[in-house]
Amino acid sequence: MEKNEISILGAGLIGSLLSIYLKKRGCDVSVYEKRADNRKVGYKEEGRSINMALSDRGWKALEKIGMTEKVAALTIPMYGRRIHDEHGNTSFLPYGKDKQAIYSISRGKFNQLLVEEAENKGVKIFFDHKCESVDLRTNEISFTVPETGTEKIHSKVIIGSDGAYSSLRMAMQKQVRFNFRQEYISHGYKELSIPATAEGEFAMDPNALHIWPRGMFMLIALPNPDKSFTCTLFLPFEGAKVCFDKINDKRDVEGIFKNYFDDAYQLMPNLGEEFFTNPTSALINVECYPWVLKQAMLIGDASHAMVPFYGQGMNCGFEDCFILDSLIEKLGTNAWELVFAKFQKMRKPDTDAISKLAMENFVEMRDATADPKFLLRKKIEAKLHSLFPNEWIPLYTMVTFSDMPYSEAYTQGKLQEAIMDKVMANPLITQNWDKLDYEDIVNQMDAAKAV
Amino acid sequence: MEKNEISILGAGLIGSLLSIYLKKRGCDVSVYEKRADNRKVGYKEEGRSINMALSDRGWKALEKIGMTEKVAALTIPMYGRRIHDEHGNTSFLPYGKDKQAIYSISRGKFNQLLVEEAENKGVKIFFDHKCESVDLRTNEISFTVPETGTEKIHSKVIIGSDGAYSSLRMAMQKQVRFNFRQEYISHGYKELSIPATAEGEFAMDPNALHIWPRGMFMLIALPNPDKSFTCTLFLPFEGAKVCFDKINDKRDVEGIFKNYFDDAYQLMPNLGEEFFTNPTSALINVECYPWVLKQAMLIGDASHAMVPFYGQGMNCGFEDCFILDSLIEKLGTNAWELVFAKFQKMRKPDTDAISKLAMENFVEMRDATADPKFLLRKKIEAKLHSLFPNEWIPLYTMVTFSDMPYSEAYTQGKLQEAIMDKVMANPLITQNWDKLDYEDIVNQMDAAKAV
Repeated sequence: MEKNEISILGAGLIGSLLSIYLKKRGCDVSVYEKRADNRKVGYKEEGRSINMALSDRGWKALEKIGMTEKVAALTIPMYGRRIHDEHGNTSFLPYGKDKQAIYSISRGKFNQLLVEEAENKGVKIFFDHKCESVDLRTNEISFTVPETGTEKIHSKVIIGSDGAYSSLRMAMQKQVRFNFRQEYISHGYKELSIPATAEGEFAMDPNALHIWPRGMFMLIALPNPDKSFTCTLFLPFEGAKVCFDKINDKRDVEGIFKNYFDDAYQLMPNLGEEFFTNPTSALINVECYPWVLKQAMLIGDASHAMVPFYGQGMNCGFEDCFILDSLIEKLGTNAWELVFAKFQKMRKPDTDAISKLAMENFVEMRDATADPKFLLRKKIEAKLHSLFPNEWIPLYTMVTFSDMPYSEAYTQGKLQEAIMDKVMANPLITQNWDKLDYEDIVNQMDAAKAV
Repeated sequence: MEKNEISILGAGLIGSLLSIYLKKRGCDVSVYEKRADNRKVGYKEEGRSINMALSDRGWKALEKIGMTEKVAALTIPMYGRRIHDEHGNTSFLPYGKDKQAIYSISRGKFNQLLVEEAENKGVKIFFDHKCESVDLRTNEISFTVPETGTEKIHSKVIIGSDGAYSSLRMAMQKQVRFNFRQEYISHGYKELSIPATAEGEFAMDPNALHIWPRGMFMLIALPNPDKSFTCTLFLPFEGAKVCFDKINDKRDVEGIFKNYFDDAYQLMPNLGEEFFTNPTSALINVECYPWVLKQAMLIGDASHAMVPFYGQGMNCGFEDCFILDSLIEKLGTNAWELVFAKFQKMRKPDTDAISKLAMENFVEMRDATADPKFLLRKKIEAKLHSLFPNEWIPLYTMVTFSDMPYSEAYTQGKLQEAIMDKVMANPLITQNWDKLDYEDIVNQMDAAKAV
């Protein structure tokens, strides 16, 4: 039987990045991926989102392995949300200040780049290897492989970066005292597209994440380098006025789009066809603990799959790799149990926090962004931040444009929320927002933090 | 391939009872059990609790198939909790009024009786059949069998009564939109025993459930027909002054027992040996939804394993069978999808409620039962119940001595709790409890219910 030092399950974004990190630390690394090599067979999404939004935590992890420039070439910056109302009017809500942006990138292209880089550095990647089972007593992994049937390998260390439906996690789940939760939300999503115009240009402002918030449902769009947009429609599966269950033919789709997203509809010539060709996908939240059993560990979505509404799934997984690497830097490559134990203990409160924020942000995106009071609230917070840049950092900024632990951002965010609730309760706030005692608001924050 | 009408996974208490119900409705029923036939090989507990406490919901389900008498012969009534303090003093806290009792019964004997009855009625039971996988698209089940290797069967209907680690649930978990949670509590348990005295008598009062509540941990004991008691020690696994991790040898065990459970210790000649022979087991809570995929359904612990602190796990599973049978009575044996869909929808709020109550009752058992204020509170509630038997039914009574839906008991219990909190806040309550305006308290309950 083949004996590996380190086996990584999954050559997705997290697995390939992690393999580069571990290779740089001098480890012998083999990665096993159930999908075919998409550099050869073309990229199939298989129900996963096409566009990712890369932000500071992700960039930081890429920088440490010198990949910033290569990745940057594939991205389009989005400086804020462009909100589309039902009449086609739009308003722009910056994500941060100055030139702060999140970056749209295609999952497929990005994954290919990371796989390429990993192979160039000497990582062995085995495609078409579907993990069937992991024996956690012996650290043996069984794969089915199209040509050879079953393959078995032994590995000193096993890392599961095999996503929300992780095989390694499935093996851990049968171990005693493994806490685990998987929860689907009531909404599903479907990807659609807005092609480039006849003139070969973007059909809308490319430097924004477009949102059509409609209360219980929404449409969003992210720009692609080929000047198209990838749109994602989020609807309840059933039991609502507008839901996937009630859409049975092209007329239903077009009716809904004309009614709720007319400006987008005008830009979507393939809507009816795409709607029935593309899958309707579910959204899962996964939490578990422990992540570690001796020298086997879960990372990324395998340990904490979150809903996509804070755009942090990939960024959080990349930060996982960065933090794990910092521990290896300190403790070396001969103390895996210690490294893994420290990692899970340190990281779990942060992934819990961002998972919660991702769930909460869904309501904000689909509902609150349509509310003038919400926009005003964001404006007041932006002003607080510009007057007191260190004392009042909006939650979105802490999460997206800093590397503050997610759990700390979460706690500060909750304090801010309570203070802003009081500020917004002022009946004259719309007229007087610019004349508030901003210093007093910030002082309330200091007082709350001191408790 | 063998084709079954109905296949039940698991010939435990719930599976065998259910098979009797279904056979009585004229169905062709096959039951598959991974364990050997314990009537032949002797009963092994394999880390599961030895004694069960049968109460009204369980009896009701047994009555419907005419088994009350046969089962009663195996039981010992327990009319209340006997609380042991650290000095060996005891006090008796009745479970209900008059002759209301819960009934201690050995899991092994009970299971044998039900299996016997099922076979006599014509149910086919296959022991040594370990379910390896269920294909939910084709309703095919694969088993490993010691003699023949792998066996495959096809079944029109599949019911998983295969417990907290259900194979059918594992198959469902891979289906889209299956919400699932498994959670272990911080405490584990170990079974020990108090043998009959040299004179062949019970060493303590046999008609009570004995509790030694010690705050963060506790010991309990239930009587057996052979005049021994089965004791269960509940301790935190780690991180506490008294926990399993810190018990390394007989001296540690004896030190703890002498210190905290001295009266029991005097009755436990085999303590040191048993402690290191018997396994330390974990306690799991499982919630999931849906329970049904077309003509496959989970029942009992497979769909809602709960912690044992309300003594309702088995009773709730039996009530599942009773309710399912009532639906079959109405809708017939040719509408499984409809029956299953109605069952899960109707039953889920109730199993959620009892799972929550079981978790909450742990604190009450190990901690509150040692508190004089708690005993007084129970006394006041008992008096309320005797004065107003229909208006104020203590929560324990609603759960244990009635067939009111668990969810309704839960809601009423929470209203009672809020009212009793106020009653107990009276600083003179210890002196004045008998002179309270009991009618006013009951009226508060009526007012609260009306909201």
